[in-house]
Amino acid sequence: MVWERSMNKLSRGLSSSQIRKPRPPSLVSLDLIDEWSSTFTHSHSPPIQKSINNDSARIIDGRSAAEEIKSSIAVEVSRMKESIGKVPGLAVILVGQRRDSLAYVRNKIMACHEVGFRFSIAELPESCTEDDVCDALSNYNKDASIHGILVQLPLPQHFDEGKILNVLSLEKDVDGFHPLNIGNLAIQGREPLFIPCTAKGCIELLLSSDVEIVGKRAVVIGRSNIVGLPTFLLLQRHHATVSIVHAYSENPEIITREADILVAAAGVPNLVRGSWLKPGAVVLDVGINPIEDPESEHGYRLIGDVCFEEAVRIASAVTPVPGGVGPMTVAMLLLNTLEAAKRALCFT
Amino acid sequence: MVWERSMNKLSRGLSSSQIRKPRPPSLVSLDLIDEWSSTFTHSHSPPIQKSINNDSARIIDGRSAAEEIKSSIAVEVSRMKESIGKVPGLAVILVGQRRDSLAYVRNKIMACHEVGFRFSIAELPESCTEDDVCDALSNYNKDASIHGILVQLPLPQHFDEGKILNVLSLEKDVDGFHPLNIGNLAIQGREPLFIPCTAKGCIELLLSSDVEIVGKRAVVIGRSNIVGLPTFLLLQRHHATVSIVHAYSENPEIITREADILVAAAGVPNLVRGSWLKPGAVVLDVGINPIEDPESEHGYRLIGDVCFEEAVRIASAVTPVPGGVGPMTVAMLLLNTLEAAKRALCFT
Repeated sequence: MVWERSMNKLSRGLSSSQIRKPRPPSLVSLDLIDEWSSTFTHSHSPPIQKSINNDSARIIDGRSAAEEIKSSIAVEVSRMKESIGKVPGLAVILVGQRRDSLAYVRNKIMACHEVGFRFSIAELPESCTEDDVCDALSNYNKDASIHGILVQLPLPQHFDEGKILNVLSLEKDVDGFHPLNIGNLAIQGREPLFIPCTAKGCIELLLSSDVEIVGKRAVVIGRSNIVGLPTFLLLQRHHATVSIVHAYSENPEIITREADILVAAAGVPNLVRGSWLKPGAVVLDVGINPIEDPESEHGYRLIGDVCFEEAVRIASAVTPVPGGVGPMTVAMLLLNTLEAAKRALCFT
Repeated sequence: MVWERSMNKLSRGLSSSQIRKPRPPSLVSLDLIDEWSSTFTHSHSPPIQKSINNDSARIIDGRSAAEEIKSSIAVEVSRMKESIGKVPGLAVILVGQRRDSLAYVRNKIMACHEVGFRFSIAELPESCTEDDVCDALSNYNKDASIHGILVQLPLPQHFDEGKILNVLSLEKDVDGFHPLNIGNLAIQGREPLFIPCTAKGCIELLLSSDVEIVGKRAVVIGRSNIVGLPTFLLLQRHHATVSIVHAYSENPEIITREADILVAAAGVPNLVRGSWLKPGAVVLDVGINPIEDPESEHGYRLIGDVCFEEAVRIASAVTPVPGGVGPMTVAMLLLNTLEAAKRALCFT
């Protein structure tokens, strides 16, 4: 079974006595890598239904929602430029040459150009030191033309992500990953300076699709710091009844089947099958998994964490991959950067 | 039905268009008061079963677990005193004269005396200003004989709790309520300086009772900043599959019935009935609700959020009220203060 390997990994990596040990010296010592293994790869996915019946789910078009948001951002940028002669600036720090990171950064550059933002990038070799990254961050912290900074994650393994993110100026943390931001997202009565982009994009898609959130059962699959956790926190701030399913959850399909709103962010292609879904559920698929496809231009194509062909017959609404949550994430990054610039420049 | 009033309150207090409004100006504007109304008061509770059958749940004895922890703290305090001539110091800031707050503070004073801590209290009248509270905090921040400070919550309504807690030195925040602490509790790979006491007490009770947490379904009822939220976060760091049920949750009894581990922290007497429990569940009752009782010495007695007499016949283990989570909360406060003192004094 798909989950067994995770549990075996757990028992190999961390004995149950370690986990049960009263007053463990640290929480970090309990941390486990959420490696989801799956027998459901693309090769096992069912044949694509070319014709979908009339009961098929509404496709939530993240691309057009993102375009709409970008258009309104572009209008704001023009107004800012005309009024005070300045535009929002976004800086990215990229370490190494990961193919997926390069693709994400390319998307961000294009999006900045589209809306009229200034864009700057610091490209560092994989062999650079933490101090090199911190120096680049400090420079951008001081640069008044830069209002948002992000460090493209993941960093190479030997880097201390926490230490580096601590250097980043809170006012420019447009990814919203600083622990103070996460704390303020979690605590009722508090306001984070920035809401992490994918979580914000998911909620925007629900709101713009008129999906009722208050009181509804929401399940988030995956508890990553950058997607699962903030999405949980934001759904809860919107008064959903939220559960997080992760690689060590027993019977994940049972709890997932209770979700009125499902956010799949495990990073496992086709993990969520039709049988995991409650009929009529709204499904947001955050997964962007490249799988080999000799017929496509680059030799691969992207699929989500949700088996789309099955979901579309059971859910009431579903986001496609690509063209769903992905474009919204970029739009939210632009929105956060616009907010940061307005705040820094006292422009309303 | 018990939940209807909450939902009505919601529709009165906040229109659905407000909640659905895309890109709300702030998260705080979405916040709702989680007022749980209940028809299940003590007067409706079933007659107490004087004789409990053999299938009854194990009673998790928080009082004796707390005594054990306090004993080991007292040993550490002696060692510290002998070795460096210093003892941990705890300071409490108390505003006003709430009866429950006075009782909690009394417990803390007694506990400090028991283990040999220095204790200091700043009692301020309800009519004092935020600046008065901040001044008291600043003084304790600077006082080298004080290693832990807590502001007894709740503060009178006109106070900005967030603003006041921001003044508190992170290194002395033994309640663990600072957003940076909460953020570091939430984020995998990060370590909070302090774990909020009730959440920590709950996990300690589970660990010391040999309850398996990894992969199990856990439900936390109540999403308060001081109990529900940190308990959720800590259970998740221990790899449970966690859901939070709150006053706006639809069908709370259905999700609660799925819990292998239930933490009830709604503040509603007898909210959780036997029919809400999965047979064999482990139930931690955080509620401490005073109800009138002419037969008891003070004219009232304390009951929990869980209908104990019903729970004991269905659960496999349950904490009593009083004598369950409450004493553990105080013990964890002492433990956090001991840790703070050790850190400040570089004593290992």
